[in-house]
Amino acid sequence: MTAPDFDAGFRAKLHDLFAWRRDVRQFRRDPLPDGVLDRLIEAACLAPSVGLSQPWRYVIVDDPARRRRVRDSFEACNADALASYGDDLAARYAKLKLAGLDDAPCHLAVFADRDTLTGHHLGRRTMPEMADYSVVAAISTLWLAARAEAIGVGWVSILDPAAVIAALDVSPAWRLIGYLCIGYPRDHTEMPELARVGWEQRRPAADYIVRR
Amino acid sequence: MTAPDFDAGFRAKLHDLFAWRRDVRQFRRDPLPDGVLDRLIEAACLAPSVGLSQPWRYVIVDDPARRRRVRDSFEACNADALASYGDDLAARYAKLKLAGLDDAPCHLAVFADRDTLTGHHLGRRTMPEMADYSVVAAISTLWLAARAEAIGVGWVSILDPAAVIAALDVSPAWRLIGYLCIGYPRDHTEMPELARVGWEQRRPAADYIVRR
Repeated sequence: MTAPDFDAGFRAKLHDLFAWRRDVRQFRRDPLPDGVLDRLIEAACLAPSVGLSQPWRYVIVDDPARRRRVRDSFEACNADALASYGDDLAARYAKLKLAGLDDAPCHLAVFADRDTLTGHHLGRRTMPEMADYSVVAAISTLWLAARAEAIGVGWVSILDPAAVIAALDVSPAWRLIGYLCIGYPRDHTEMPELARVGWEQRRPAADYIVRR
Repeated sequence: MTAPDFDAGFRAKLHDLFAWRRDVRQFRRDPLPDGVLDRLIEAACLAPSVGLSQPWRYVIVDDPARRRRVRDSFEACNADALASYGDDLAARYAKLKLAGLDDAPCHLAVFADRDTLTGHHLGRRTMPEMADYSVVAAISTLWLAARAEAIGVGWVSILDPAAVIAALDVSPAWRLIGYLCIGYPRDHTEMPELARVGWEQRRPAADYIVRR
């Protein structure tokens, strides 16, 4: 099989894809067409995994009662976080995230199974967290595949992982990596929402480079 | 600014990119042209980061003595790992990784700074590991940007993070996420090397999906 050629036109579009991928909080409620989520998960499974261990576990959450329990965990954790900021901006931002949980047609919880025997533990002895990182790589891949179909992803991390595991009735040995809201975004923008609302700005790459 | 349109042709190529990204161990020794590594790091900085905290810290390792200390850590950790497998395949695979460390023109260590104040800790209270995950997303982005330029990346995880931090003289508060070998691969393949050598096979996505 001949290796594909990625030309300058593709690379420019790929850069656009990186630049226009957003952490989406405002979704339209239209459902995703049948088969789309499976296709996105298949793309995610092309991500690198340590020792080819494929430790990703995808939980599609459709049951309204389970979604409500996840939402409850968000509200509880977020109340704690807000108390420590004590300003208006954090409160406004929190509302956006709740809106994401309420409106996104698709909820996908993604876990890492560190105990998997697949891959025979290669590359995970000194850094067992490599299994978790493989799952993050899968989420990153899914995120880009989704954006290329004009589908948005929002990663909710203000959650108690134990509460999410209980709400979804999955193995307590699994580690929650990301709880994703997926659906069509209300709009597309190149600027991260947190930059737009003035929470934080992007810094130049040079600020983060050290030479040794 | 108008959102870019990603058409079916781009999506097909993007799928090829996911499929042909490899964890590369066999590099040609030719250096990367000037400016390429900076461009790849700039792409990495377009990755999502929790609360826009940008916790990625990129250490470009050129000093031969420092590289040697990292290589020593790999050899020590790998000897331990090999002892537990006691077979030929693991030994052969380990040699490939050493070859990667020896031949790749570019070494890039990537760390997470969990203590960064950028992003005001948003989204990191219940899951402080989100900072590490942001750095993994940056590495995933860099990896795809590299492959689109026919450049290979190999992620070495058989290392003692404390030894790497000492070898590179960086803050002990930083967490080592990935030590990357970067350069032109000897060949391009669609099949993961571990699948090719019979270490492990890829499973269908359906094996990893649960519905709730």
